[in-house]
Order: sequence, then structure tokens, then C-alpha cells
Amino acid sequence: MFESAELNQTMAPEKYDAELPELRSSLLQAHFDLRSQKFPVIVIVSGADGAGKGELVHRLNEWLDPRGVETHAFWDPSDEERERPPYWRFWRAMPGRGRIGILFGSWYTSPIIRRVFGETKGAELDAELEQIATFEKMLADDGALILKLWLHLPKRAQRKRLKKLERDGKIAPDDWKHFKLYDRFTKTSERALRRTDAGHARWHIIEATDRRFREFTAGRLLLEALQSLLPAVAKPARAPAAKSRGAKAPAVKAAPARAGSILDHVDLTQKLTDAEYDRQLAKWQAELTKLAWKAREKKISTVLVFEGWDAAGKGSAIRRVTQAIDPRLYRVVGIAAPTDEERAQHYLWRFWRHLPRAGFATIFDRSWYGRLLVERVEKFARPDEWGRAYREINEFEEQMARHGIVVAKFWLHVSQEEQLRRFKERETIAYKQYKITDEDWRNRKQWDDYKHAIDDMVAHCSTEVAPWTIVAANDKKFARIQILKTVVQRLRTAL
Amino acid sequence: MFESAELNQTMAPEKYDAELPELRSSLLQAHFDLRSQKFPVIVIVSGADGAGKGELVHRLNEWLDPRGVETHAFWDPSDEERERPPYWRFWRAMPGRGRIGILFGSWYTSPIIRRVFGETKGAELDAELEQIATFEKMLADDGALILKLWLHLPKRAQRKRLKKLERDGKIAPDDWKHFKLYDRFTKTSERALRRTDAGHARWHIIEATDRRFREFTAGRLLLEALQSLLPAVAKPARAPAAKSRGAKAPAVKAAPARAGSILDHVDLTQKLTDAEYDRQLAKWQAELTKLAWKAREKKISTVLVFEGWDAAGKGSAIRRVTQAIDPRLYRVVGIAAPTDEERAQHYLWRFWRHLPRAGFATIFDRSWYGRLLVERVEKFARPDEWGRAYREINEFEEQMARHGIVVAKFWLHVSQEEQLRRFKERETIAYKQYKITDEDWRNRKQWDDYKHAIDDMVAHCSTEVAPWTIVAANDKKFARIQILKTVVQRLRTAL
Repeated sequence: MFESAELNQTMAPEKYDAELPELRSSLLQAHFDLRSQKFPVIVIVSGADGAGKGELVHRLNEWLDPRGVETHAFWDPSDEERERPPYWRFWRAMPGRGRIGILFGSWYTSPIIRRVFGETKGAELDAELEQIATFEKMLADDGALILKLWLHLPKRAQRKRLKKLERDGKIAPDDWKHFKLYDRFTKTSERALRRTDAGHARWHIIEATDRRFREFTAGRLLLEALQSLLPAVAKPARAPAAKSRGAKAPAVKAAPARAGSILDHVDLTQKLTDAEYDRQLAKWQAELTKLAWKAREKKISTVLVFEGWDAAGKGSAIRRVTQAIDPRLYRVVGIAAPTDEERAQHYLWRFWRHLPRAGFATIFDRSWYGRLLVERVEKFARPDEWGRAYREINEFEEQMARHGIVVAKFWLHVSQEEQLRRFKERETIAYKQYKITDEDWRNRKQWDDYKHAIDDMVAHCSTEVAPWTIVAANDKKFARIQILKTVVQRLRTAL
Repeated sequence: MFESAELNQTMAPEKYDAELPELRSSLLQAHFDLRSQKFPVIVIVSGADGAGKGELVHRLNEWLDPRGVETHAFWDPSDEERERPPYWRFWRAMPGRGRIGILFGSWYTSPIIRRVFGETKGAELDAELEQIATFEKMLADDGALILKLWLHLPKRAQRKRLKKLERDGKIAPDDWKHFKLYDRFTKTSERALRRTDAGHARWHIIEATDRRFREFTAGRLLLEALQSLLPAVAKPARAPAAKSRGAKAPAVKAAPARAGSILDHVDLTQKLTDAEYDRQLAKWQAELTKLAWKAREKKISTVLVFEGWDAAGKGSAIRRVTQAIDPRLYRVVGIAAPTDEERAQHYLWRFWRHLPRAGFATIFDRSWYGRLLVERVEKFARPDEWGRAYREINEFEEQMARHGIVVAKFWLHVSQEEQLRRFKERETIAYKQYKITDEDWRNRKQWDDYKHAIDDMVAHCSTEVAPWTIVAANDKKFARIQILKTVVQRLRTAL
């Protein structure tokens, strides 16, 4: 089974560079189309140690929309998990319909490893594999799309890779131990894959020697799987749509700013050259990567809040942060309309439930500040409700800080002119059209109301333990660096 | 503050017996009215060791509808709880709107205990109390009804009570240790109560010397609190409503039974005399009480499933089980329409999430068998969907059993004639009217379809590890004893 993969498959850098943009934009498009679908997508990333599973998970996260994807790594089970049947932790991790769940490790890990280390007999392994097959069948019957990726490293490549990892000081404690069991591991894995390879949950073996090949192949497989189940979407007629929307758009003239708005003091002309950006991006991301692992070690959690004007670049800024962090260590929580279980609770309940475990990070794409912004401006909340929210929110954040959680909050500020420019640009770029809605145009009319609300929010909720950072975001490069730098500095102080 | 309670308040048994039925029926009515309301009810039961907090929580559970109430005891925090800010565990325990949450111990316990034992200073206690006040204010602002009950035992009564507990071998390890700190405990508690007594979250000090007095008082306080917030409900004009419903009800004639239906072999004439019932009830409940604690010690969990014809007496049978178990040890999960978070998942997900931690019990009032019953008969699920559910459910229950969970499933069977009699009875008893809906009359028409579905269900899903028990329920007393006995026997075998 694995022999078929050992063809020393590689992908030339030029080919990779040439074909990647198309793959990424198709993937992103398929991911957006998935939102309205009634099935969840489960991507299992398995394979040998050192085969680049972590990197691949990282890459997939980078290519997809962080708001519609969640990565679950299965560390040692918590006591709450140990006290329930073994699959309870997997049920907890299931993505909802319309979402992608990337499972880093999965129900395969423990059966294979225990067999390799002789803790179970062959018959027990078979029984466990049978259970897996049944479980996956059940998920698939319910409509789930299950994509199973196995990263395979030929023995020679494995040895070479481990040596390099060792030189770089990146090797995990068990890596060499597992290598001694390479043949046994290969044999057991083959058996596991063979017995659980089904039409509704097919295994794809990807030779993992070459990074570009394995990542591109994985991306392509995911794209094909998504496209096979998504209804063929008629491409929107680009130009007319843009025109009609453009015609409807009101000519927004810059309203006179309220005297003394904090936003008026933001120097929006700040920018970075491409060269400077690349240099700083590399520097701060590298630092963040290290700090994220150190935070995990020291069990310091992080909560990042992203708010900002529509089209201010929250999504891409979040991506620059997540790129630097191992996907097992963070979760991005996109805040949209509350579910009915959330509506049945106090409005802060939906945020409490997402607080990270010790050493992990939660990144909120919009947040509890909705209460003080959209809910206030749109009058979804009564004045007494949003009025008392300042104190409630400060108390909430103080509880986090007191527990040792690092809280950083970003408001991405752009000028009205820049926002208009971006709206228009979005309308003309096909794969960005999903990003601009009638609501965006509506919100724009209320610029001054929002400005007022933002001033109040920053004045009341910028506390010592959880300060607001107002980010000058007319230049996206400048904004991203400012954010990365702030996160790094906050973490440094805390660690 | 506590002095006011030390008036040696008691309630004569005759008075208690005379007034309790009215209180209970009003409480139940208020509880049903609460369902449609947009606020949660939080009942905090606090007070001295040995003051009967456990008994009181027990009694409240008995008086209320188990489907609309949840009890949360706060044992030592799990690792998942320790890794979040301290209040995370309380947020998890919040009842949703329209529900009652009884908190056995609460955010008061740790601040008071740590101060009594000298682990914190007065200023720290004050800061924690300030935080509590803020928290409760926030909940109340959101509409929550907060009722705080403090069971107070005068020093002399405390000593007497502990001695009796000691004689009965029921004393907790810390009880005498705490008693030595009685004065300090009283002083600290008073301070805590004083500083957190607010209009929206009032403390009620109940002298706990006399069981009847304290329980009746607590029940009355809860009733008054509920009534103060529930809109005055116009009592339905009883007779006309009953008549018009009665007129609409089709005259159901007993349909010919399918040959060989398992239900036809149930001897529905089995019954118990009142005397025999009382004797057996006491016996099995006493046994169950002991076994439930032993299960907790041995970390064996229990899952009970209750299904049955409408009006077969599921609710009252469940109550006879829960009466015997400490409310901290079980949770009743009523299964109605799925929430939207549940709809976004595989249909078994909503049951997985309620599996108990080690040593605890979950009682499902209706369950995953809805897939094979109502969803099949009403065609909510397609034949392929309910068709594969037999295997999926067996697999689910097997996973529980393999993990050591005791699984017992009850189908409460009544004859069509008995069901009709009960429907009519319900229509004429005001406080039972909520229990009979148009749907009940509709379901009745499909008696044969259901019978068919039940036969298939029992044939396929009565496994060695999770057998079905068909309960002859024409006589409610007989049914309740059969259920209690089965639960006890299953637990005995497992422990």
C-alpha cells in the first residue's frame, strides 16, 4: 500500500509557485460555498512522526478562511475526558454542518501506537479498527465529508529527516524511539488503513518527502473533495453585479468628525515599504512562534480580540497572527448571530464558553464588544443594557487577567475614503464578492454613530490589564506589523 | 443578622401535612408557567454543615418538574476548570431562560471557607464579595431571578445535630473540624451575607433546626419569588376547555394487534396494593440511595433511559428514582426538539454531550430512541436514516457499557383504554392540563404504527449490555417498583 507512494515524488518550486494561487483561490471559494451546505467536513491528518503533519495543518489553516475551520489536536486526555467513553473527546471536536474540522491525530492514533508498542494484540487492533469503520460510516451516512490524509515517509527519507530535525534542535522526544519501530509502525499502519479504507471515507497516502508536493497534493485533494459535494455554483456575472451595486451605493461624504474623537488622532498615513514589511513580518512571526510554545509550557493563556471597521482588514491581520502559531495551540472564534442555546443565556456566556485551557489561545474575530458597538448603534440593546456593559466587560476581562490570561484587543481603524475604496475593489474582484454585503453599505451610513460608540468603548474599557490598541490600518502592512509586535510584547512581558 | 433566625422556629407535623399539598401544587404550576418566560431562576442553597442543605435540595427537586430543573454541586474543580478563571465553572452551570438551576454550594463557598481557615485576609474576602455582588447584579440585570437561601443552625442545635449524625455514622470528615470554628464561621458568613444582600438578590436566612419548617419555608420563598415575576396567569376556564378538547378527540377503538407483538405479552393486570407499594418503595429506594453513593465512590456511571406511551407515567416514575438519589449525583435530561447547535451535528451528538462524569448518573426522559419511534412513525427521518439507527444506537450503548457505564432502558407500557382514561382525567384536572396536548391525541391515532416500531426497537436494541425492560404500567405503583428494582439489581451486579 505504502510502496505506491515511494516514487520519490516532488514538485518543482516554479510549478508550485505558478499553480498555488489558483489552488488557494479555488479552495477559498469552495470553503465559502461550503458555509451554506448542510454537511460538515472532517479532515484527518495522520502519518509518521516528522513527516510534516504539523506544517501541513498549518498550511491548510492558512489557505482556508479561519472563521470556518477549527483544528483539534488530541493531547493527553483531561480528567473530564478520561471519565467518559474514549470517543467522547472526538464527539466534542466534531465540526458543525457547513464547517471544516481538521483533526491532528484522531481515533487512529491510539490503536496504532498501542499496537506498535505491543500493548494490544492483533485481534484487539482489529476490533478497534472495526469500531472506527463503524463510526466513520455513521458520520458519512449523516452527510459528513471525511477526508483522510496519511503522510508517508520512506525509511531512508525518515532517517534523513530526523537527523536534520535533530541538528535543528526540533526533534520530539519520541521520534528516534519510534524510528526503531519503523517497520512495525509501517506494517500496523498499513493494516489500519486497509481495514478502514471505504468509499465514504477514503485514505489518501501522500509521499511526504517533498514539502511542496505533499502540501499541494493535500490542498488539491481537499479541493476535489469539496467540489465533488458542493453543487456547481454558477459563476456570478461579474461586471453587471458590480455596476448595479455601485450605482446603489450612496455617495458618502466625509461627515464632520466629533471634536476630540480618539480616532482623529490616529496617524493614518503611517505605512511600510514592501521590503521593510517582509523583514519585520519574518522577525515578529518568528518571535511569536517561540513565545506561543513558551506560553504553552508555562500554561499562560492568551485571548486576542479583533474589532474594526468593515473592510479594515481584520481577517488578513488575524491570518498573519495565526500563521505564526502552531494550529494546535489556538482557536479562532468568529462571532456572528448567537445560536439559540446562546440566546438562552446571559450575553457573556457565549464568550466564557470559548475561553482557552491553560497555555492555549483564543482569537475572537469580533467579540463581546458587539454589545457596545453594533448592538448600541443599531439599537438591538437598550441603553440600560449597553450602558451597564462597560462595567460587565471590564469585570470579565479583569477575571481573565487575574487568572493570568494575556488579553490584547485591537481596533483596526481606516478612513472613510479608504473603506469606500476597498468596498469598490471588493465588488470588482470575483472571489472577494462574498465579503461585501448590503449590511456593509448600511453600516457605512452610521459612521459617526459608530465613532461615538468607539470613543466611549475605548475610554471605558481600555484598562491596565486589558488595554485597547488602536491600529492605523489604512496601510495593511503597517497594521499587521503593529498587531504582531503588540502581541509579542504583551507575551514577552507575561512570560 | 443570624440572631433573628434563632427563635427556635418549628412547624407542627399536622400543619405541614395539611399545607404541603397546596404548596406543592402551586410550586409545580409556577414552574410550568416559568417555561414560557424569558428569565432563568438561580436558587443558591448555602449554610452551615449539617443544616440539611442536601435534604433541602433533594426536596426541591422532588417538588419541581425534573425536566425544568438542574442541580449543580461544585465538587473539587476538574483540571479543565482549574485551567480557566474561577468563575468559568459557574458560567457552565447557568440555567437557561425558563429553567431553574439549584446551586448546592456556589461562588460563596470558597471565599467564606478560605477566610474561616485563615487562608485569606479580611480585605481579600471583601474584594471577593464585591466581585460576587457585581456578578449577581449582572445576572439580575439580564433578568435572572436569584434566590439565596442560607440555612442557619444555632450553636447548640449544631452540636446536637452533629452528635446525632455521628451516632448514625452519617457525619462528613470535616464536620467537627468546622464546628470548632463555629463562631468564626458565623462571623464570616454574616459579613458575606450582609455585603451581598441586594434587592435583586436577597438573602433569606432560614432557621434550620426543624426539618419541616426549613423545607416548607424554602418552598414558600421559592414560590413567592416565582409568582412575583411570573405574569398573573388567568386561570383557564376549566370545564369548557376540557369539553371542547373532549369533543374534538376521536373515539379511538382498539385496533387489532399485530400477531406476536411483544407488547401483547405484557401482563397489564399486574398491580400492587397500597401497603405493598409503600413497603417496597421504602425498601428499594433505601437500597438505591446506598448504591448511588457507592457508584460514586467506585466511579461507576449510570445512564437510565425512559421511553413509553404518552401518559404512561414516565415523569412520576423518574421522580421515584430521583427521590432516592442525592441530587448532586444525577441529572435529568428531558429530550425535546433539538437546539440549533444540536441540529448542526449528528443526531447522537446531543446525547453524547450529556454523558455523566465518572460516578454520576444521567436520566434521559425520552432519548436517542426518538429516532426509531417518533421520527420513524412521523416520517421525520427517512427509512435509510432510521434503518441504520439500530446499529448506530447499539454501537453507542456498547461504547458506554465497555467504559463501565450501567445502561438501563425502560419502555412504560399501558393499554389504549388506560391511556384514554388518563387523557380524559388530565383534561379535567386544572394543574395537569399542561400535560395533554393536541399532539398527544394525534399520536394516539398511530398506536399500531408505534407498536410496530417498538417491536423492532426491542428486537434489535435489547442487548446483553443494555437490555430493554418492558414495564407493565397500567398500575403506576407496580411500574414504579419494577423500575426501581431493575435499577437496583443492575447496580448491584455492577458494583
